[in-house]
Amino acid sequence: MSGNRFVIIGGDAAGMSAAGMAKRRRPDMEIEVYEMGDYTSYGACGMPYYIANYFEDLNDLVVVTPHEFRENRGLKVFMRHRVEKINPDDKTIDVKDLDTGRTRTVFYDDLLIATGAEPIIPGEFNLDMEGVFALRGLPDAASIKDFATRPDVNEALVVGTGYIGLEMIEALKEAGLTVRAIELAERVAPTFEEEISTEISEELSRNGIEVLLNVKAQKVERSESAWLSVTLSNGETLTTDMIVVGAGVRPRTKLAEAAGVELGVRKAVKVDRRQRTSIDRIWAAGDCCEAYHRLTGVNAYIPLALGANRQGKVAGSNVAGIDAEFPGVLGTAICKVFDLGVARTGLGLKEAEHAGLDALTVKITGNSKPHYYPGAAPITTLLIIEKNTEKVFGVQMIGHGSAIKRIDTWAACLAGGFTLQEINDLDLAYAPPFSPVWDPVLIAAEVAKKTLK
Amino acid sequence: MSGNRFVIIGGDAAGMSAAGMAKRRRPDMEIEVYEMGDYTSYGACGMPYYIANYFEDLNDLVVVTPHEFRENRGLKVFMRHRVEKINPDDKTIDVKDLDTGRTRTVFYDDLLIATGAEPIIPGEFNLDMEGVFALRGLPDAASIKDFATRPDVNEALVVGTGYIGLEMIEALKEAGLTVRAIELAERVAPTFEEEISTEISEELSRNGIEVLLNVKAQKVERSESAWLSVTLSNGETLTTDMIVVGAGVRPRTKLAEAAGVELGVRKAVKVDRRQRTSIDRIWAAGDCCEAYHRLTGVNAYIPLALGANRQGKVAGSNVAGIDAEFPGVLGTAICKVFDLGVARTGLGLKEAEHAGLDALTVKITGNSKPHYYPGAAPITTLLIIEKNTEKVFGVQMIGHGSAIKRIDTWAACLAGGFTLQEINDLDLAYAPPFSPVWDPVLIAAEVAKKTLK
Repeated sequence: MSGNRFVIIGGDAAGMSAAGMAKRRRPDMEIEVYEMGDYTSYGACGMPYYIANYFEDLNDLVVVTPHEFRENRGLKVFMRHRVEKINPDDKTIDVKDLDTGRTRTVFYDDLLIATGAEPIIPGEFNLDMEGVFALRGLPDAASIKDFATRPDVNEALVVGTGYIGLEMIEALKEAGLTVRAIELAERVAPTFEEEISTEISEELSRNGIEVLLNVKAQKVERSESAWLSVTLSNGETLTTDMIVVGAGVRPRTKLAEAAGVELGVRKAVKVDRRQRTSIDRIWAAGDCCEAYHRLTGVNAYIPLALGANRQGKVAGSNVAGIDAEFPGVLGTAICKVFDLGVARTGLGLKEAEHAGLDALTVKITGNSKPHYYPGAAPITTLLIIEKNTEKVFGVQMIGHGSAIKRIDTWAACLAGGFTLQEINDLDLAYAPPFSPVWDPVLIAAEVAKKTLK
Repeated sequence: MSGNRFVIIGGDAAGMSAAGMAKRRRPDMEIEVYEMGDYTSYGACGMPYYIANYFEDLNDLVVVTPHEFRENRGLKVFMRHRVEKINPDDKTIDVKDLDTGRTRTVFYDDLLIATGAEPIIPGEFNLDMEGVFALRGLPDAASIKDFATRPDVNEALVVGTGYIGLEMIEALKEAGLTVRAIELAERVAPTFEEEISTEISEELSRNGIEVLLNVKAQKVERSESAWLSVTLSNGETLTTDMIVVGAGVRPRTKLAEAAGVELGVRKAVKVDRRQRTSIDRIWAAGDCCEAYHRLTGVNAYIPLALGANRQGKVAGSNVAGIDAEFPGVLGTAICKVFDLGVARTGLGLKEAEHAGLDALTVKITGNSKPHYYPGAAPITTLLIIEKNTEKVFGVQMIGHGSAIKRIDTWAACLAGGFTLQEINDLDLAYAPPFSPVWDPVLIAAEVAKKTLK
């Protein structure tokens, strides 16, 4: 039997989804959300497009304001309240009101840790230095846009070329700057297979982006000729006006760890599919915790928005006494890189091998539309296939714009455990404005099947 | 054991797919294709976009020329050769060379009927009358475009608002004409559910297209004020400069019927999933024959390009001695209507009820992208659901442009027999340029699930 007081640490996707779900399931429940920042439930993934000036009002990213939550949903949301400590034995938390500076103790029956993730900031970057930024939240988005549009700011350096790095490269370029990037790995977007990375590189080049590979920053200083001077690991020095660090994220778990909650993959909070942690009545959801992977059957750390929302709903439902289980992730993700979209679902080759599969990759190029139709453009599909079952365990795609949303068709195929033959047999939609007769999904499955023979 | 001579009647999608597949499987086979027209293997679905002037060279629609087939693929393709008669007892066909007027007899071991479909031309329309057209093949596309661009041609009337009617309405409008349409049924695109038809109507209105419903033409005459005068079944008379009949198609089966080949659904050639007809060693594929429906398990008449290509390959493989079975269709189709795309897969409500399902429809409106991202637009999804299993048996969508290619994700779900819950659990791709966090596919499944409760 669940208790009556549900306390949530963190007011973004996972936390607010949990709050909303619990309230719907059990309207009588007392639900309190403590958020250390100034915003709840905002579309963080939209920040690069605000910086790119695709829209002007940052408030458009706020899905539900704290006021709306309080008024319409019967939840208590405390903004600018930082949880300092979890006391599992007492079932309390210590909360500091950042405006008054006072700390109080709050009792819970159930506690959800939804503290999210934080950008990894290598030691050589000091976010207090003028011109050095990371994208932690809405205030950062505002600061970056303000700084990027200063008349004396012309050049930017983006650190990292993962999803956020790529989006920031495009955003700053769209904001009118000359953009360079540095990447620690030997290729851009290293979570993709090499063939896809190569095509991303080409698109960056076409858009005048210089990327330095196999390199990291060692020292950042004020410069005389520009704002900043960066000494690189290869001995070179470059100057730039601003730096945006997009070097990945890690789960924000200090609170959980200090409370004795067990951590798992990549030091994310260890959870089961009901979102339970190692401590009774303490739950976790979102980017601070692991996510069950549908293909491997084990937990991974894949901090993405849809999974966070879902985990929040699952936790909220369970807390309210209605059993729910997280269906798991496939690691489906998509990212715009100038005119292209790049997307993936399922496992990469190394992940597949690590999961014990005898896998291989096949790369196939198809066309988004018939050659005669305006806007027809190539789509590259890379499949990761288990040899003996001919089942697809991973897909990576790159091609023009929205054509890449075809990754969802692949995600459905992976969820269904379809073989190449079953995929090749699908009845997909054809008309010249949308696709060739044999859609690239069908072509990819057919070519891969022939390759395996 | 299959014989050595494979004769194919009809050189379009199904016929040429069969020829190519048989040749690959058994390079020693003698393959002859008899095509009564001037073109083989052309992209018929591209014709409206040629008329709309999206591209200029009609030859771009020809996928493989007869010359290329002869030279590179080792097939004999006879153009402008009309098969007059099939003689199953002798295993011969009588073929007339339309240029010389001579008829000869050709022996076969296996015969494929791939005679396609032909537009239904109601009796009141005489295609020999100047200004009256139907879209039977490339020469018609050329004639329609030539006529539509004459300086003295300003208005067009399209008869029928199915896929071809809708595409022709747009094409003629894009060609600069004022376009009206008449539809026999009480709503446009009557193979869609009413809610979808309504949105198609609205898009036609927004583009200045007047559609007269519940009406048919009764008489077409030369006019003095314009080119043509049309008397309608409601007693009204309207004038127009040109008429394009897009009132659906029917299987072209006179040859088959005369040979004693059994006909089935809508008088299409009856076939099994290996594409065998009722007569031994006579096969059929493409728009002249039935297609196995994956959801009902029985044959339907759904003449679409992908199925035709597939049936051709299946027939060719079987003739070459390698067993193959047609996987079946879901009736997946997509059509551009000005700024919108409209698509479907699976069964309509009546089809579902006819198949014995206790079904209902749920209509859901979602967004193609987050509200703040440029180009975000609503997507309407209508689901046909079997009540007791909560499985989706049909999906119809309408919304802006390529966002509607999401129908393929649904087609994969239908092929997998997924329940609403399984669909709602899919890990689909999210980034603001491509989708909201909860893709319209997920939203539709979730809302439908709640509606069923």
